[in-house]
Amino acid sequence: MSLRLTILGCHSATPRSLTYTSSQFLEMNNECCLIDCGEGTQRQLRKYKIKFSRIKNIFISHLHGDHFFGLIGLISTFSLLNRNSELNIFGPKGLKEIIQLQLKLSKSWIDFPLRFHELSSKESELILETDRIKVHTIPLKHRIYTNGFLFREQTQPRKLNMAAISKYKEIDICDYQNLKNGKDYKLENGTVIPNKELTSDPVKPLSYAYCSDTEYFEAIIPHIERVDLLYHEATFLEEHRHLAEKTKHSTAYQAAKIAKNALVKNLILGHYSSRYTSLDLFLEEAGKLFPNAQLAEAGKEISLSN
Amino acid sequence: MSLRLTILGCHSATPRSLTYTSSQFLEMNNECCLIDCGEGTQRQLRKYKIKFSRIKNIFISHLHGDHFFGLIGLISTFSLLNRNSELNIFGPKGLKEIIQLQLKLSKSWIDFPLRFHELSSKESELILETDRIKVHTIPLKHRIYTNGFLFREQTQPRKLNMAAISKYKEIDICDYQNLKNGKDYKLENGTVIPNKELTSDPVKPLSYAYCSDTEYFEAIIPHIERVDLLYHEATFLEEHRHLAEKTKHSTAYQAAKIAKNALVKNLILGHYSSRYTSLDLFLEEAGKLFPNAQLAEAGKEISLSN
Repeated sequence: MSLRLTILGCHSATPRSLTYTSSQFLEMNNECCLIDCGEGTQRQLRKYKIKFSRIKNIFISHLHGDHFFGLIGLISTFSLLNRNSELNIFGPKGLKEIIQLQLKLSKSWIDFPLRFHELSSKESELILETDRIKVHTIPLKHRIYTNGFLFREQTQPRKLNMAAISKYKEIDICDYQNLKNGKDYKLENGTVIPNKELTSDPVKPLSYAYCSDTEYFEAIIPHIERVDLLYHEATFLEEHRHLAEKTKHSTAYQAAKIAKNALVKNLILGHYSSRYTSLDLFLEEAGKLFPNAQLAEAGKEISLSN
Repeated sequence: MSLRLTILGCHSATPRSLTYTSSQFLEMNNECCLIDCGEGTQRQLRKYKIKFSRIKNIFISHLHGDHFFGLIGLISTFSLLNRNSELNIFGPKGLKEIIQLQLKLSKSWIDFPLRFHELSSKESELILETDRIKVHTIPLKHRIYTNGFLFREQTQPRKLNMAAISKYKEIDICDYQNLKNGKDYKLENGTVIPNKELTSDPVKPLSYAYCSDTEYFEAIIPHIERVDLLYHEATFLEEHRHLAEKTKHSTAYQAAKIAKNALVKNLILGHYSSRYTSLDLFLEEAGKLFPNAQLAEAGKEISLSN
């Protein structure tokens, strides 16, 4: 059970000489996802030596350019690299039309299965479930329809306590699956051995919540409660809260308040406005309320394991 | 009368860690144009310190991604920078739909006049004429509808020969414009003074032809004859001519052959396939036929003046 998040870009609005717009590469329980895809994301993937073929699922939070202008280029590159494995794209309604129009007009043939899963619900929904992870949307509050995403490892089966099992000779190897699934064991004499005596709790699944872009929005707290890692946008500092309100973004303080109230373990800040030349004040502002905060920066890797 | 061309990107297919796809910034007779706009062009403009507000006209040769995927990001950035001057975009039919769909779905408001001039003619046509330059299309032969562009400075008025004029006291300052326009002067006694005696030829207008992407196509020669500068794509070397034919691209040798037959003064090669780690062979191959050839590379500036 492990999670590794690589920040590819974490600034808002437009790419600049030294910064890239939103994109993250998430490896969770050996499932690989790309989250948002600002212009230049494919360059960043190359820079940080992430193999393109590992990306199976792409999640687009919303249709502001700094979150998806790199997608059509990435899809084209997949095609030029002769990808043949399926690619799933989750994003707002309209994304499919944007991509398909460009593929049609450029007479590009995509030889791999390209599956769009368009989102329009305002309620949280399960959008992907594999053997390894499950992903729910987190409805956010921004100027246009926007979702965050909650990534959670699948719960593992219970661990067999072999020392305890060996005391009961009639428990056979073919009973193990039932024990892993949490069932009690009934001996031939009718005695019931509680499952907890024969197994132990599995490793707790890791969870990661990506929340960009949004104004301060307490309604997300139930969705992200106690996650191991929360990325929450912090476009502004408190001194510019009026701009955050006007543009429906958050301040570093507000991101920390959400993290604190949701009892999350770790917080990463990002989506900084280009008006700030130094980011130290973001960490300072958030850290006063939530000490376990850190700054996103391109190339940064955050690893967690259980 | 001057021309300065800055190469922003000159590789084919996809941006990579060290290379960018097609884009060039042209300053001609104080008129500024962007030619093609691959992904990441706005980063390159910043890198080479080209002010965004100087770009008045954008020319897109065709709808393959390596020539236009950076356009929507650049337009969005213009908007974020509060541009208010007009922007003219010349490109194949369909480009307007691609851009407008993305602006609509992202609920972006463009506060500056954004004028699309969609192209569909298979004949060369005059698409822009200002006081300073005129631009014609150069129909190319590629897998999809593609135009090159011929940029030519406007012919300047004839130069007054003040020493000669001063001999004739009845020639007044208000006659000068007619002389500049090439008219002869009729004295009151009926004698006609030929214009050539009173003026000299103006500086010869400079010309630049951009030809990417195309297979070897001799039909372009009449359009580009004797231009001061020709950019001609050279995706492959002769050893891969079969690939050039298959993909409707050119080799360095073919680019040089076009340059030689069109009697152009200078040739720049570009649009290299990523299969080549060194570009020296491109110059060697073209140079045998056309010595006045050079390689495009990002950041390179080529200046000409008359």
